[in-house]
Amino acid sequence: MKIGFIGLGQMGSGIAANLIKAGHEVTVYNRTAAKAEPLVKEGAKLAKSVAEACKGDAVFTMLANDEAVTQVTHGDGGILASLAKGAMHISSSTISVALSEQLTADHAAAGQVYVAAPVFGRPAAAAAGQLFVVAGGAPDAVKTAMPLLDAIGQKTFVISETPKAANLVKLSGNFLIAAVIESLGEAMALVSKGGVDKHQYLDILTSTLFSAPVYKTYGDLIASEKFEPAGFAAPLGAKDIRLALAAAEELRVTLPLASLLRDRFITLLAHGGDKLDWSAIGGLAAKDAAA
Amino acid sequence: MKIGFIGLGQMGSGIAANLIKAGHEVTVYNRTAAKAEPLVKEGAKLAKSVAEACKGDAVFTMLANDEAVTQVTHGDGGILASLAKGAMHISSSTISVALSEQLTADHAAAGQVYVAAPVFGRPAAAAAGQLFVVAGGAPDAVKTAMPLLDAIGQKTFVISETPKAANLVKLSGNFLIAAVIESLGEAMALVSKGGVDKHQYLDILTSTLFSAPVYKTYGDLIASEKFEPAGFAAPLGAKDIRLALAAAEELRVTLPLASLLRDRFITLLAHGGDKLDWSAIGGLAAKDAAA
Amino acid sequence: MKIGFIGLGQMGSGIAANLIKAGHEVTVYNRTAAKAEPLVKEGAKLAKSVAEACKGDAVFTMLANDEAVTQVTHGDGGILASLAKGAMHISSSTISVALSEQLTADHAAAGQVYVAAPVFGRPAAAAAGQLFVVAGGAPDAVKTAMPLLDAIGQKTFVISETPKAANLVKLSGNFLIAAVIESLGEAMALVSKGGVDKHQYLDILTSTLFSAPVYKTYGDLIASEKFEPAGFAAPLGAKDIRLALAAAEELRVTLPLASLLRDRFITLLAHGGDKLDWSAIGGLAAKDAAA
Amino acid sequence: MKIGFIGLGQMGSGIAANLIKAGHEVTVYNRTAAKAEPLVKEGAKLAKSVAEACKGDAVFTMLANDEAVTQVTHGDGGILASLAKGAMHISSSTISVALSEQLTADHAAAGQVYVAAPVFGRPAAAAAGQLFVVAGGAPDAVKTAMPLLDAIGQKTFVISETPKAANLVKLSGNFLIAAVIESLGEAMALVSKGGVDKHQYLDILTSTLFSAPVYKTYGDLIASEKFEPAGFAAPLGAKDIRLALAAAEELRVTLPLASLLRDRFITLLAHGGDKLDWSAIGGLAAKDAAA
Repeated sequence: MKIGFIGLGQMGSGIAANLIKAGHEVTVYNRTAAKAEPLVKEGAKLAKSVAEACKGDAVFTMLANDEAVTQVTHGDGGILASLAKGAMHISSSTISVALSEQLTADHAAAGQVYVAAPVFGRPAAAAAGQLFVVAGGAPDAVKTAMPLLDAIGQKTFVISETPKAANLVKLSGNFLIAAVIESLGEAMALVSKGGVDKHQYLDILTSTLFSAPVYKTYGDLIASEKFEPAGFAAPLGAKDIRLALAAAEELRVTLPLASLLRDRFITLLAHGGDKLDWSAIGGLAAKDAAA
Repeated sequence: MKIGFIGLGQMGSGIAANLIKAGHEVTVYNRTAAKAEPLVKEGAKLAKSVAEACKGDAVFTMLANDEAVTQVTHGDGGILASLAKGAMHISSSTISVALSEQLTADHAAAGQVYVAAPVFGRPAAAAAGQLFVVAGGAPDAVKTAMPLLDAIGQKTFVISETPKAANLVKLSGNFLIAAVIESLGEAMALVSKGGVDKHQYLDILTSTLFSAPVYKTYGDLIASEKFEPAGFAAPLGAKDIRLALAAAEELRVTLPLASLLRDRFITLLAHGGDKLDWSAIGGLAAKDAAA
Repeated sequence: MKIGFIGLGQMGSGIAANLIKAGHEVTVYNRTAAKAEPLVKEGAKLAKSVAEACKGDAVFTMLANDEAVTQVTHGDGGILASLAKGAMHISSSTISVALSEQLTADHAAAGQVYVAAPVFGRPAAAAAGQLFVVAGGAPDAVKTAMPLLDAIGQKTFVISETPKAANLVKLSGNFLIAAVIESLGEAMALVSKGGVDKHQYLDILTSTLFSAPVYKTYGDLIASEKFEPAGFAAPLGAKDIRLALAAAEELRVTLPLASLLRDRFITLLAHGGDKLDWSAIGGLAAKDAAA
Repeated sequence: MKIGFIGLGQMGSGIAANLIKAGHEVTVYNRTAAKAEPLVKEGAKLAKSVAEACKGDAVFTMLANDEAVTQVTHGDGGILASLAKGAMHISSSTISVALSEQLTADHAAAGQVYVAAPVFGRPAAAAAGQLFVVAGGAPDAVKTAMPLLDAIGQKTFVISETPKAANLVKLSGNFLIAAVIESLGEAMALVSKGGVDKHQYLDILTSTLFSAPVYKTYGDLIASEKFEPAGFAAPLGAKDIRLALAAAEELRVTLPLASLLRDRFITLLAHGGDKLDWSAIGGLAAKDAAA
């Protein structure tokens, strides 16, 4: 397919490379054009504007937040104004449920197609084409998008005909990861102050009941208090918890554990944690305990 | 070895059977003698009193709570009064850190040996000899106990020379499981009210980032709202969180997530949840949301 | 002075009446014109548009939320477009700190003056001119506004030269009231389930340490479970806690008690509490306790 | 009446002095006898043992905690063993609901009478006879005790025929005070980081909606960060919240705000706050905010 790709950060670069590798004709756009160079070497065409990236059958966006997606989509010369009727916007960014709902409506009004396809996985998984993709959208649209999604991940889950449901699943997933971080942070503060070695403790956990990689990955970071450099920065984690709580409030669902996580992130940021990995909230229980 | 075994509930029966199977000479005792019958058929000797179960080199206790262990240990004709000098009390019950500390001191004063060996696993794992054992105690004592511990579990982790550290690890482990239950309960209330199928959602989670069995097991129970019969009853879960918080308070560690779990259990029990599985706290977020 | 007044709800009608009574020349505007009739009888002039209410030296706004204030201020023919250079917008609505900041900037850019003057007090106090006013703004502006503010309240507190500080104080005050409601709700659930009569209990509290009217007022509502009709509706309380949390997040301050209140309001609204008084969150502890 | 008085700390000394002043024949006992000297000068008789203080019609206890009351009551030569049949134990200490229940039963079994009469007020109020007394007990017993209670306080509230209800009310009252401290701590952290002067803010609060002395007293301490010397030490506050939560758990009532307070106290004590006034938990929100 002939597609565009907007947003060449750590995640976007890896995803775009896999789309090229799969044989698609990819035109890339990034605010800072330098980031596009490696992809151009691999065969991508460089767009000088958002509009130029919207000439094909579909355009991906993989951007940092609602503001960036809104600007690229609704701004002058944006996707809404540039995409052909019947062409598709595939949004892989972690954005709010509310924005996903608005994009669905706006693209429909413009005679365009909108598919939400947020992903689970860190930059290494993106580069390796090993992401997990959660897709929401009209059946026809998702069917059309599937070869693209298959190219970027190891598995695609079609969750709903309503795009925003995919974003809700993504946000809830990040909430669950943050919950793991918090629970490990508390447990380690406890056993550590009780004289148990944190790494040995983690070894017990991960070789018994908590064998999921998420426990190993974040447990190591917390046990080692190794919160720099950030794989996923604390302000992004804070944002995702905020979006999960906003979606929950709209649905009138309380998430008391998410409220706790929200407070953890604010405390972390109040103490200058902007550059830390989001797992740094797992170090706060130890601080409260003066452990 | 010649050993005694006190406490033949769902867990204790399975553990004792594996000790017999491993060739040890086991004398069993249970307040309700009828529960001993299957073990007697497998070769156990039946004790009519706690004292009779204390004639060997070691005696296991696997009882419901602090009160039961205290009664069997400190009561008239109890373990302290009956065990030979140099013989060993192996405590596998999930008890408080404070009681474990007291038992360590009391057995030492009586010239006896105390090893804490709490276990992770449900009754089926106990029956299959597939428990995980966390052991704490003096190196010599643990070494002596090791053949017994190897007989009841798939792996033994020696965590500390201080017995109570093993109990702290056990309590923290149950806290981590309850945290998984709570986080899944909140996430499912959210996505479900947002129109996503809970079972499909769980399938995504467990085939991606949350592959640990604990997510599958408890996720199924929560998605199906299948909280009866209880595999591990809510009052026991409430007790373990209470003990974790008590240990934490003694160490001056705050566990805000455990405080939330404590409130969940109290709410569950206030509404008649005594017979439910502890995973029923995972249904409370949906109730709060009128979902 | 010659002034306009926009927003004739329960609060605004009382305030406008006192401005008329104090001898000011008041032009009133309300979306539903019928509400203006009593004031016209007392001497007000009726405006047919927002613009008509902006012909004088100052214009008050007393509206339900950010959206209403934004529409009236920034909309076509709104205050920004209609107010003379040097004239003043006095905003008494309970709005977000962020909007207050924006209004300060926008009016300054238009050569106009902005004063934030949120009030404490229920409709009866507004009618009686017994409100408490918290004012923020440039010293000259506040000085000019003072005769107006004196006319509507029993006392005016000048808190800052930055208007938004007054809004922050107002929001924090509503947070403190909601905290009283929650604490009374929990305490009453406890003593009541323990066999103590709630009204007798409240009598003890209010005749000893908790003599402030806020304890008497809300204590009575909670003890009697009399949450209808709403003096201040639950969705408005929910909004104010949300705004307090948003202001706190912006300042990187955690308010764990406000997070708890937020969850209480969401639970209340999830169960159909939109028409109830905000003190109905004080009934939730008893529900959780099945008391 | 001829009475005994056990426990001459800051509170007990003031109470005992007022009993003497009211013309009662008072025999005092304190573990550290030196503290009795001022009272002996005012006419008290000095007892060398608990038993000696139990020769009259009634004996007061005003001690620090459950352990002290248990020792004095149940120990060798304690109140239970020493008080005449029909004589009365008036317990003014802030103790657990569970202990109050046990004392009721134990004194009844010994043919003695038990009245719970915990008090509200700081040492100055005790010295001035201006305490508030909350009494629980059999009607006859309370009637007999009334002249004594009238001598020590400005008002006595008879709350129940069950003594422990009075203790529950006392604990809930301390919970409500701690809730005020927490709410003020959060509100001041917020407005202060937003540029508002804390003392001016407090002045607004206490001259409007929050006129109760408790807001003035604790607000001043928090605004001035003046947490030493302790009027009521943090470990005692921590204890009372723990007892309130224990009573609530027994009754299956959740107090999420009390759970938050519990965590605040643990954090305070983890950071060396043992010597601080309990209002120091009101400084933690500012610390979390790095304000």
